[in-house]
Amino acid sequence: MFKKIIFTIIILGCFNSFAQNKDFTQFVNPFIGTDKMGHTFPGATTPFGMVQLSPQTNFQTMYQQDGSYNPKTYAYCAGYQYSDSTIIGFSHTNFSGTGHSDLGDFLVMPTVGKLVLDPLKTESGEKGFISSFSHKNEMASPGYYEVKLDDYNIFAELTASDRVGFHQYTFPKSDEAHIILDMVYNVYGYDDKNVWTFVRVENDSTVTGYRQTHGWARTRTVYFVMQFSKPFKSYGHKKYDKAKYNGFYRKFNEEENFPEMAGKEIRAYFNFDTEENERISIKFALSSVSTKGAMKNLKAEIPHWDFEKTKAETHQKWNKELSKIEVKSLTTEDKITFYTALYHTMLSPIIYEDVDGQYRGLDQNIHTSDGFTNYTIFSLWDTYRALHPLFNIIHPQRNNDMIKSMLAHHDQSVHKMLPIWSHYANENWCMIGYHATSVIADALVKNVGDFDKNHALEASINTANVNYFDGIGDYKKMGFVPEDKSSSSVSKTLEYAYDDWCIAQIAKSVGNTEAEKEFLVRSEYFKNVYDPKIGYMRPKLSDGKFRKEFDPLDTHGQGFIEGNAWNYGLYVPQNLDEMIQMMGGKERFSKHLDSLFTMELDDKYIEKNEDITRDGIMGNYVQGNEPGHHIPYLYNWTGKDYKTQERVRIIMDKMYGSKQDGLCGNDDAGQMSAWYIFSALGFYPVVPGSPNYALGSPLVEEAILHLDNGNSVKIVAKNQSAKNIYVKSVSVDGKKLDRNYLTHDEVTMSKEIVFKMANKPKK
Amino acid sequence: MFKKIIFTIIILGCFNSFAQNKDFTQFVNPFIGTDKMGHTFPGATTPFGMVQLSPQTNFQTMYQQDGSYNPKTYAYCAGYQYSDSTIIGFSHTNFSGTGHSDLGDFLVMPTVGKLVLDPLKTESGEKGFISSFSHKNEMASPGYYEVKLDDYNIFAELTASDRVGFHQYTFPKSDEAHIILDMVYNVYGYDDKNVWTFVRVENDSTVTGYRQTHGWARTRTVYFVMQFSKPFKSYGHKKYDKAKYNGFYRKFNEEENFPEMAGKEIRAYFNFDTEENERISIKFALSSVSTKGAMKNLKAEIPHWDFEKTKAETHQKWNKELSKIEVKSLTTEDKITFYTALYHTMLSPIIYEDVDGQYRGLDQNIHTSDGFTNYTIFSLWDTYRALHPLFNIIHPQRNNDMIKSMLAHHDQSVHKMLPIWSHYANENWCMIGYHATSVIADALVKNVGDFDKNHALEASINTANVNYFDGIGDYKKMGFVPEDKSSSSVSKTLEYAYDDWCIAQIAKSVGNTEAEKEFLVRSEYFKNVYDPKIGYMRPKLSDGKFRKEFDPLDTHGQGFIEGNAWNYGLYVPQNLDEMIQMMGGKERFSKHLDSLFTMELDDKYIEKNEDITRDGIMGNYVQGNEPGHHIPYLYNWTGKDYKTQERVRIIMDKMYGSKQDGLCGNDDAGQMSAWYIFSALGFYPVVPGSPNYALGSPLVEEAILHLDNGNSVKIVAKNQSAKNIYVKSVSVDGKKLDRNYLTHDEVTMSKEIVFKMANKPKK
Repeated sequence: MFKKIIFTIIILGCFNSFAQNKDFTQFVNPFIGTDKMGHTFPGATTPFGMVQLSPQTNFQTMYQQDGSYNPKTYAYCAGYQYSDSTIIGFSHTNFSGTGHSDLGDFLVMPTVGKLVLDPLKTESGEKGFISSFSHKNEMASPGYYEVKLDDYNIFAELTASDRVGFHQYTFPKSDEAHIILDMVYNVYGYDDKNVWTFVRVENDSTVTGYRQTHGWARTRTVYFVMQFSKPFKSYGHKKYDKAKYNGFYRKFNEEENFPEMAGKEIRAYFNFDTEENERISIKFALSSVSTKGAMKNLKAEIPHWDFEKTKAETHQKWNKELSKIEVKSLTTEDKITFYTALYHTMLSPIIYEDVDGQYRGLDQNIHTSDGFTNYTIFSLWDTYRALHPLFNIIHPQRNNDMIKSMLAHHDQSVHKMLPIWSHYANENWCMIGYHATSVIADALVKNVGDFDKNHALEASINTANVNYFDGIGDYKKMGFVPEDKSSSSVSKTLEYAYDDWCIAQIAKSVGNTEAEKEFLVRSEYFKNVYDPKIGYMRPKLSDGKFRKEFDPLDTHGQGFIEGNAWNYGLYVPQNLDEMIQMMGGKERFSKHLDSLFTMELDDKYIEKNEDITRDGIMGNYVQGNEPGHHIPYLYNWTGKDYKTQERVRIIMDKMYGSKQDGLCGNDDAGQMSAWYIFSALGFYPVVPGSPNYALGSPLVEEAILHLDNGNSVKIVAKNQSAKNIYVKSVSVDGKKLDRNYLTHDEVTMSKEIVFKMANKPKK
Repeated sequence: MFKKIIFTIIILGCFNSFAQNKDFTQFVNPFIGTDKMGHTFPGATTPFGMVQLSPQTNFQTMYQQDGSYNPKTYAYCAGYQYSDSTIIGFSHTNFSGTGHSDLGDFLVMPTVGKLVLDPLKTESGEKGFISSFSHKNEMASPGYYEVKLDDYNIFAELTASDRVGFHQYTFPKSDEAHIILDMVYNVYGYDDKNVWTFVRVENDSTVTGYRQTHGWARTRTVYFVMQFSKPFKSYGHKKYDKAKYNGFYRKFNEEENFPEMAGKEIRAYFNFDTEENERISIKFALSSVSTKGAMKNLKAEIPHWDFEKTKAETHQKWNKELSKIEVKSLTTEDKITFYTALYHTMLSPIIYEDVDGQYRGLDQNIHTSDGFTNYTIFSLWDTYRALHPLFNIIHPQRNNDMIKSMLAHHDQSVHKMLPIWSHYANENWCMIGYHATSVIADALVKNVGDFDKNHALEASINTANVNYFDGIGDYKKMGFVPEDKSSSSVSKTLEYAYDDWCIAQIAKSVGNTEAEKEFLVRSEYFKNVYDPKIGYMRPKLSDGKFRKEFDPLDTHGQGFIEGNAWNYGLYVPQNLDEMIQMMGGKERFSKHLDSLFTMELDDKYIEKNEDITRDGIMGNYVQGNEPGHHIPYLYNWTGKDYKTQERVRIIMDKMYGSKQDGLCGNDDAGQMSAWYIFSALGFYPVVPGSPNYALGSPLVEEAILHLDNGNSVKIVAKNQSAKNIYVKSVSVDGKKLDRNYLTHDEVTMSKEIVFKMANKPKK
């Protein structure tokens, strides 16, 4: 007890920011997004932590018995669905909000009674190790999760440090208590993702090993150390694949108390005698490097068995990060929505290196980060939009490290490309564009970071010139991606043009006028896919002609990806004025926007879309997916700013909530949540790579940004209410703005930004 | 040219031993053992080198189409059979003489004409990339191999440094020249051994990657760098498995000019235009650590493109090692047999670390050798008998390093066991006993090495107490391994007892009398499996009674492994006098030996044995396999030394030869050859762990051992001839021996050992 008090004093002593007495974690509901298609997880993790220790509520195999795709799997990208009533265990890695699945490494499940190693059902039809649970016995807060496993009367608690998961199970009295380590389980379920697994029982309470998978990432390897607080009395494993230890000699009883297990599909178990309410804890450390690396992480981060201590430390870490935006005036509901969104913006990218800086690179060699912290999980098609811009405000040091991680990725890439989707020492090539250039440009124009600008330019230019990637060669030659050569060609052309504009900004910042000029030319290629005859962006073919068959409402096969010409066609952030001019001028364009938000979309246009559901749709506008996230703010370019103000308030109101179903689509590694944070504060980075934020309509009445530069910026929305959604004026440090955007300097270096709100639009 | 001359001077300058003007490599015929069951390879390697770059003449899948075992495969343990007339390529790793198969990594094949990626036949029935060849266009010498590939008119030359294979292909004129990198091929053939492979085309002439296999070794990973002397004009690969790069997006033409290839089964190709007689060279470096490690090895060992230079350096390395035993007087035939045997004793163990000392350990972590060179391939059931004793004479420093490698293996072993069969960071558990203890004891009693004796004792004691291993628990409890619990129980009991005696010797050398006493007790357990009623070692059951069913001639299911009670039952090296007494005394025992060598063995006793063929059998004595290698020398313990002299000369004469069929059984990592070297010199280490060598009948008339201690020992067999096979007397430095053995000090520290030979036995 004395020890604990001392510890608390030390922690509080270190935590000398203003926020030491405020608990923002109380407003985080980790269940938001766990119902329907948010794809978030409720488990325990630190801000940007390498471990995401979270319950897996069921499993779905990607392919059904008849070989067809199982549509149910899509809900399980983070392993948890709120509507489920069973848990199969707790795994150590989970994506937050992503649009595809992977991970789920190292499923741990405590049970009592007869040992059962099959998850759902045994061969003879008995129940598997899965347990029912009830939400009334479940609780989650940042860095902590608890649940009662009803079938076993086991109380499970989870917390985590950056690289170590910490389990605490309270057992009933039993001479048949087990802890199962299921090496087969993957998100989703038990599909054939495993390449190889290896488990070593080092002594009576320490287990090491690794798993290699081939899934969304082509070859992903995660090493671990698993340490029990109490020696197991016996252990064993069952192998579900045909790979034998040794084809010629079987000198051992390999299945019981044999300390080396390997193969494709293994489930291990560890047996204990337990007293009533006896606790058995497990520390489970990860590494991308080696089991030796995992052991280093374990010893450095949790050199004790005090679960409460780690829980408290992680709680403090979360509170420190959440306190960077101090919101004073929202309803509790909205505070929960706000702080959970803020929480969701810090679940990825994740730290991807051991405590000694070693990490596995894209070339599969072991590298040491020099002068930065290495990160992975860059879901860039999503996150360049608002998440990285948010980091430039509240996590500039981390964003700097992330950019350095992207440059290391480039250097290790055999293609010499910046990441498209960095995925645990793999590139999974998901979605389109090369938006790392946007992240770099955005940081540069905002003076964030000390990364090597020339290197960044070189890496960006290399990336934009990989001719064999996704139509780039044709794009460079012809000025557009031809649909007959590379599908989703309009989306690609539009995004390449924007990314090229970003490269021009990078070139400008290092004074390379030649490159700036070259990429400004490329940034205009969006014009090449606009068909003035019909007023839409439209797929062109190699012969230079627009394709005849074309439905601007269809999201499939019409030159777009996860969008249609109506909404995705508005993607020219780098030159909105010219796009609007091209589309008939401000008036006509604002009507296009009006129709977009109000039209009735036939079911046929959305029924095949996993990423776009009715929950996230307003007319033909899609908040539940990324490509249109800037659109509600485009009224600002038509002179009808008040319509932006209306739309964003409606979106915040209707499409975000404080309950488990509070996300209207995949959180997409934090982008959906970052949109909310910006919009709630009253501005949004419509054009990452420019220093400006378009004005919206703040939901907060008062918020204070506590920034790393030592400055605190107070944002006040005077007279704000559910009715007073219109911005009458904005002033910065007392000086009234004569424009409808804020600059990054104003957002980070002023003292006070005051919105005056009204119940009538300012036309 | 000038450069070359300079280089040669430098090399010769370094090589200041007596042998600088003598070429012993001329007497090495690398084809010995490539016909029938020698399991040797003819390709290019350095002494104890990590690369064995050798032709693969055919392939055999382990399982036939009907799922049954294909008996032909056994001939292909080293990938090459002399009777074949086709070559499918050149692979970089090959075991020498082992009794099971693995390796064959990274098969490279040059072709011209239409690209064909199937090895034997295409799907449409056309010929695969395999080529016919003829022995008249084939040549091999230490460190060099050449062959003409008839189907393509390509002249192939191979050499190697320790860690880098060097290919030189002379092409005809072609605009369709190809070099195929077949990542699927394994020894044997194309069975499902691959776990994962990864190939990266780093630039227009450099390729990196790795392969992970699950075969004899459970999880073996080899990394490589492949560098071409000329840029390829294009490249590609074909994947033969179902593992897709990415299940969701296919943004590339992955098959052509796409620099990342991965999957279970891949064949890559590289295309060239060639002029008539144009040479394309390849440097192919290996590493157990990483591609980065392989690159370090490449740069350190062959930083140039001078094939002849590397060939000359490797030739010199070989000559230096071969010159350690200078034989002056044999016929050319016998010199070829002798020096090829000597050559075969230096093909394994192999160096298993990168130039910077990093290597993959048994725990799959990366370690750095500290104060030693790390080795792998310890086929200890074979090699403790004569190979490691030979190393104690001519390679004491290497044997010291090997023992340190074994201790590192122990330290990394989760079982805390010394190696049984160390196999590329794996333990393959092949055969029985824990004979690393013998290697350690033998080095200790001979004062070889500076390894930590106490650590060696601790590791030995740990190993001998792993109760769950192969009957050890019962052996300790009951004094024997019970056949009903663990088969081959008599062989195990006998070998454990010998190994325990070795541990006692180690304990004695560090003054641990308690351990010495304990293990001396265990060393007597051989008595517990002797049935005096029938006069044979015989399997006992857990109830302490001998098993009723018993056939002392049968090698299957009678308590022995690869032997029967008649021959394997004579395995008590540590206490031969007592064994002989137990078996009825000297006279009766010598008659047992007479019968052993002269009886007619029914075919039924050998037909199921892969390891024992008629070629290697004399009566019921088996020279073609290891467990009886000491037996011909046992007459020395019966007073009938002359019979040993007769037997060993007959064995050397009949069972070794200078042609491709010159080995009567698997060379077993050099043990068969080491037997020959000792026997040809006139003595043999019947009891490794004692400092004594039993006298035989030298085949040499004169041999000089040039030892690392600076001493040269001349061995003279006066009056030796095919008829004068009997030893009349032996003197050391002029002093006549009054015993029938030599000591290690005499063999390594005297100046002259003189055998006087006669045509009549000395009775």
